[in-house]
Amino acid sequence: MRRCDTLRPFIVMDIVREAAGLPDAIHFEIGQPDLPPAPGVVRALQHFRGHVPYTESLGLYALREAIAKHYHDTYGLEIGPGRIALTQGSSGAFLLAYALTLDAGETIALSDPGYPCYRNLARLLDIEPLAIGVDAATDYQITPDMLQNHEIRALHIASPVNPTGSCYSSANLQALCRHCDERGITLISDELYHGLTYDAPAQSALAFSDDAIVISGFSKYFCLPGFRLGWIILPETVMRRAEIVLQNMQIAPATLSQEAALHAFDPEYLATVRETFRTRRDYLYEALTPLFDIPVKPDGAFYLWADISRYSDDSLTFARELLHQAHVAVTPGVDFGANRTRRFVRFAFTRELEHLQEGVRRIKRFLGKT
Amino acid sequence: MRRCDTLRPFIVMDIVREAAGLPDAIHFEIGQPDLPPAPGVVRALQHFRGHVPYTESLGLYALREAIAKHYHDTYGLEIGPGRIALTQGSSGAFLLAYALTLDAGETIALSDPGYPCYRNLARLLDIEPLAIGVDAATDYQITPDMLQNHEIRALHIASPVNPTGSCYSSANLQALCRHCDERGITLISDELYHGLTYDAPAQSALAFSDDAIVISGFSKYFCLPGFRLGWIILPETVMRRAEIVLQNMQIAPATLSQEAALHAFDPEYLATVRETFRTRRDYLYEALTPLFDIPVKPDGAFYLWADISRYSDDSLTFARELLHQAHVAVTPGVDFGANRTRRFVRFAFTRELEHLQEGVRRIKRFLGKT
Repeated sequence: MRRCDTLRPFIVMDIVREAAGLPDAIHFEIGQPDLPPAPGVVRALQHFRGHVPYTESLGLYALREAIAKHYHDTYGLEIGPGRIALTQGSSGAFLLAYALTLDAGETIALSDPGYPCYRNLARLLDIEPLAIGVDAATDYQITPDMLQNHEIRALHIASPVNPTGSCYSSANLQALCRHCDERGITLISDELYHGLTYDAPAQSALAFSDDAIVISGFSKYFCLPGFRLGWIILPETVMRRAEIVLQNMQIAPATLSQEAALHAFDPEYLATVRETFRTRRDYLYEALTPLFDIPVKPDGAFYLWADISRYSDDSLTFARELLHQAHVAVTPGVDFGANRTRRFVRFAFTRELEHLQEGVRRIKRFLGKT
Repeated sequence: MRRCDTLRPFIVMDIVREAAGLPDAIHFEIGQPDLPPAPGVVRALQHFRGHVPYTESLGLYALREAIAKHYHDTYGLEIGPGRIALTQGSSGAFLLAYALTLDAGETIALSDPGYPCYRNLARLLDIEPLAIGVDAATDYQITPDMLQNHEIRALHIASPVNPTGSCYSSANLQALCRHCDERGITLISDELYHGLTYDAPAQSALAFSDDAIVISGFSKYFCLPGFRLGWIILPETVMRRAEIVLQNMQIAPATLSQEAALHAFDPEYLATVRETFRTRRDYLYEALTPLFDIPVKPDGAFYLWADISRYSDDSLTFARELLHQAHVAVTPGVDFGANRTRRFVRFAFTRELEHLQEGVRRIKRFLGKT
């Protein structure tokens, strides 16, 4: 098979397209926040004048400093701006992390279910993705014992996890960092949904290892998905190599996105964002619990992973019927791997409460629960 | 050697950094236009309001339509928007073209001298770059006979060429398209500097082959480098695979860049851009001809390739001395390959005429020509 044929499409994109054709559709399928940016971000763009040159390949130094300050303020971690690079979305950061860490033919461990881009980007670079099956028994976390019998070069985790919203516990995160550091395995920690945590603040892998690669960005908590701006924190020893890869891969991220993102660290705005999603999470979890088996209450992100097996053993057909009969769009679990994903669908709570409520009413009717 | 160690840095970046520390430096090193965007682009950004969602992975349909119209108006070619995808700069388009076309271990032919990102991106994907030496004998063009004895899967050309500014003739471009089509070789044609041609309008490879992959973007002629917005035109048969790769690699290009770029096709503005660079080209070519051997007068782009061998056999040392003694920054030829590049430097005419004139005065003094 040719390299590019090994990448699998996102089935949810068909759902997104079909739902876009239904004016009254309820959207539980969309993995991006619906809130407007922080007021300072909007003002910065409106005051735009003149020439828009490339920035440095690692990104605007002032923005790297702002991110360093964010790690100080949020986690009490001292990360110098010299260890931070801006990337074209977190997608660009994943690709950079893989290119820096893995040669063709080497293996990266990924959780199943998990974010499908990881394995697709691995295949793009001829890296072998190794699926580690996880479930509610470990709150959908990979634990060190699951890695015992595998020869891996890197481990890629995400916390909060897409699609389940579970967070890695500090104890397990620390144990994974130790496991990886002792074996020369690179731990790549996707912390893109940090900030959107509702029960306890999430801990960064950087609290436990200076060799961990941490990836985050402005698309979720900061509500700037279309800005295509992510960041990566790397060990100091690889920064020069990272710069060389980025010079070639991106030249630099979009300049206006970077300049406007300087105004994204607005505590009052961010607190409102978190509370908005917390309210939605609380509502949707309560509303769906009588209808589906929900193995974990999401601690973070804006997703909820629901077992539909009392109604169907085929989440794709279930999602299609729900869309066409009730005009409710959800993401079929099969997009997230092969580990019992035909029994699950993912709900995203990325619309206002009234929209979610109408969705729940329709689902009840669809399931004959009224 | 690990994969990421096979990428070579741009030496010019050291020059850029050192020149940035000299307030009175003259900049011949910078490969981006200095002109402000078209007025409509500026206005579009200033009117920005509210939410910034992702666009479709292939980019805003209206922008793909605008690009299709541009090919109709400029080249008389009918390219449907369904064959066009927006990418994160032309860098993203190169990576996509390589991922779609070449498996690990396969070979891509590149010209030497040539744009160094090509070979670095090839190495990132474990593709073998094959350097084809070119010189003034063919106006720095690759010709079909240079490819006769090589087993290649793809050929990547650029017209106008960075660093020499030469354009591929229609006859040679047609011959290369035929050569590639007959042998199942994918021709990738980088047409990023189209529009910035001063003697005859450049022809697109799409005029001669529907199987050619054409890459261009908004960074040069449209003067939007910091927007990070390129495009790629692909055969219809690979569009679905391209969409899948882009979903993973970029999700989508920056939304604001795309929305503003809708206003970039402004004929009056673009005519002014072209005339501005033509005036600079005419001046600099005349001014430098007495000082250096300039093998080809640039037909396009904003670069001039100057043989310094009557002064030095080491372009890197020459560039450093010129910077430190005369505060004039140029790009050492070694950044562009290994084919007699130690004898050349590249001049970019990306600053106003007075700046270029002052640079020439300083170079004359430096060379003892006054």
